[in-house]
Amino acid sequence: MPPLRPLITLLTDFGDSDWFVAGMKGAILSIHPDARIVDLSHQIAPHRIDEASYFLKSCYRDFPEGTIHVVVVDPGVGSARRAIAVKSRRYFFLAPDNGVLTYIFDEEQPVEVREIDQRKFLRESPGRTFDGRDLFAPVAARLAQHEPFESYGSVIENYRTFSIPQPRREQMALVGEIVYVDRFGNLISNLTPAHLEEVSSATKRRKPFIRIGGRAIEGLVSSYSEGMAEEPSVLINSDGKLEVFLKEASAADLLQMKKGGCIEVS
Amino acid sequence: MPPLRPLITLLTDFGDSDWFVAGMKGAILSIHPDARIVDLSHQIAPHRIDEASYFLKSCYRDFPEGTIHVVVVDPGVGSARRAIAVKSRRYFFLAPDNGVLTYIFDEEQPVEVREIDQRKFLRESPGRTFDGRDLFAPVAARLAQHEPFESYGSVIENYRTFSIPQPRREQMALVGEIVYVDRFGNLISNLTPAHLEEVSSATKRRKPFIRIGGRAIEGLVSSYSEGMAEEPSVLINSDGKLEVFLKEASAADLLQMKKGGCIEVS
Amino acid sequence: MPPLRPLITLLTDFGDSDWFVAGMKGAILSIHPDARIVDLSHQIAPHRIDEASYFLKSCYRDFPEGTIHVVVVDPGVGSARRAIAVKSRRYFFLAPDNGVLTYIFDEEQPVEVREIDQRKFLRESPGRTFDGRDLFAPVAARLAQHEPFESYGSVIENYRTFSIPQPRREQMALVGEIVYVDRFGNLISNLTPAHLEEVSSATKRRKPFIRIGGRAIEGLVSSYSEGMAEEPSVLINSDGKLEVFLKEASAADLLQMKKGGCIEVS
Repeated sequence: MPPLRPLITLLTDFGDSDWFVAGMKGAILSIHPDARIVDLSHQIAPHRIDEASYFLKSCYRDFPEGTIHVVVVDPGVGSARRAIAVKSRRYFFLAPDNGVLTYIFDEEQPVEVREIDQRKFLRESPGRTFDGRDLFAPVAARLAQHEPFESYGSVIENYRTFSIPQPRREQMALVGEIVYVDRFGNLISNLTPAHLEEVSSATKRRKPFIRIGGRAIEGLVSSYSEGMAEEPSVLINSDGKLEVFLKEASAADLLQMKKGGCIEVS
Repeated sequence: MPPLRPLITLLTDFGDSDWFVAGMKGAILSIHPDARIVDLSHQIAPHRIDEASYFLKSCYRDFPEGTIHVVVVDPGVGSARRAIAVKSRRYFFLAPDNGVLTYIFDEEQPVEVREIDQRKFLRESPGRTFDGRDLFAPVAARLAQHEPFESYGSVIENYRTFSIPQPRREQMALVGEIVYVDRFGNLISNLTPAHLEEVSSATKRRKPFIRIGGRAIEGLVSSYSEGMAEEPSVLINSDGKLEVFLKEASAADLLQMKKGGCIEVS
Repeated sequence: MPPLRPLITLLTDFGDSDWFVAGMKGAILSIHPDARIVDLSHQIAPHRIDEASYFLKSCYRDFPEGTIHVVVVDPGVGSARRAIAVKSRRYFFLAPDNGVLTYIFDEEQPVEVREIDQRKFLRESPGRTFDGRDLFAPVAARLAQHEPFESYGSVIENYRTFSIPQPRREQMALVGEIVYVDRFGNLISNLTPAHLEEVSSATKRRKPFIRIGGRAIEGLVSSYSEGMAEEPSVLINSDGKLEVFLKEASAADLLQMKKGGCIEVS
């Protein structure tokens, strides 16, 4: 059963120095004074749709059924780009139709996607630069008030996505990619235990070799505290991904590695 | 009708690394356990009264009637500077009497301004360095509990303001000012469509020329996506102000322009 | 009487760019949809247990009785380090057993400390890197739902603490330490008015001399506004500690002083 007062989460690239987040919250609360709002983050790097998409994937499931996840990373605001409302089995998502929900579309099937009817829901404003406040906030507020999902616009099928980076096979190895670098300098890859097994059944080796940034790491550890201070180590993180770390320091700094860098298992 | 549980918003220069915001929230919730608190921002640059004032102006109207806006940018804390409580038709404001409500006084008329009676409301503390927690938080909590506005102190008339920068006419042109630079490097001016019309009826030109940072920009666009990657463009933003931007990049960086810089329309 | 809906506060070194805080909140709200969560801060420097401990000490008392303070600065996550639940007369605390509650143990006596039974409360996860979400969040949610404190695990006595820096006497002087530098560059020491009196009864001088960073400051002022622009001044702050500041500027920058620096009173 959906909750009586669904949560609204906000994920944006608005930062915390300007009034954009406050404006969105005010707009939601003006329509729905009892709304319950949770900030996911407002520190997505400006316009980084891929980063926001990975962020949302990493925590949307932690929220209760019926939660309305609102993502506003929106370089095309004010243009002809569509705004979409998405319903999956457990959640709602509101976002510009620019690919920012790519990982959600990958994980949540089936979904129903509707193009938000902007003539009906866009709040009047002197200029068209702030759909977070003028479009997404009012729709989120009404959705939290249980206005039927059908009322937001027509179903569409051709919503936009980007291609999610996939590991590729190279002879006896699998080459993955660093898809996220967190605050601690941990390097999160798109490789999973299943990939490790695939490689080990091909190579007949029990301990995998991981190559990254010119180093070779043998085997995995099971917690950060088993790492070493000078050499990077690898573990399976809480999201089930291979993660390279340096004990109580930054692997990203040590290895001079950023998002998009290569990681090889053999 | 005012809401049963009015919102309390907080705008400070406390940052997010110290316990000052937490202390304020705890103090509010200790008096009024059901208080609903919304952060506007705590990233106002230390002591920048003008910045906080512009910030508040840009979002206070988005909140529901009865909201209590608390602003603590307070270099004079502990001195003889007064603390004020302000009531307008729709909102309450609590702040030090140092000009930080200047834009509010400009927009919200009529207002009733009271000097907060510090003997009655100041919480005892070993030192007088934290009125956010020791004075403004208790008053906000009581106001949210509907304690009458009259009880906070006597009406005053001579509250402090700074002078708001106004565009000035220079021959056939209007010279405005950059009043805010946002996270995206967008340059927000104090010029409006009315200023554009004023210039165009004087010059008989339909398309305005905008001069900023040594560049001349002809005409306006209507959304960020119509801008160019190498050249700055101008639009009317969601607050009805002329805003200079660079498509998916920072106009402030490109033009080496900061708050206070000149922008000319001719 | 404890509140019907106790607050849960969160203090971590997770920053605000990653999904860790969001994941914790989602996990709490999934168990206890009406939970009320207040962020203390997520900007503790990575792994700085001492900093988190001082932070918490500085604001936990501001919160209402029954508040559940959750601290996750946890370099040993996934290792054999214990997780603890602490009950004092007015509050609950949840944290890894790594010393992060040292100041709390110093101030809140008596306390009951229990080792959280991880077999019972740890949520299943592909990897053991996120106890904030997988262990502390569920326990906080249940505690807020008034599940009895006894149910979380067995009482222990040998919880970990670090030694709190104490001022030491040197001839006619007392040498203290800068224990915290705040956003404004104010230098907060571990010296109190009682220390000043101790020195002045020894020296028979009424005005103390304070030496810090090669400068000598005579006497105290009572508010920031009484300070000078070029010379640092000293006052007693709202926590009852000697604090060195520079009027509307950073004493830390002027004196090139950091946490751990010396301050001498004579």
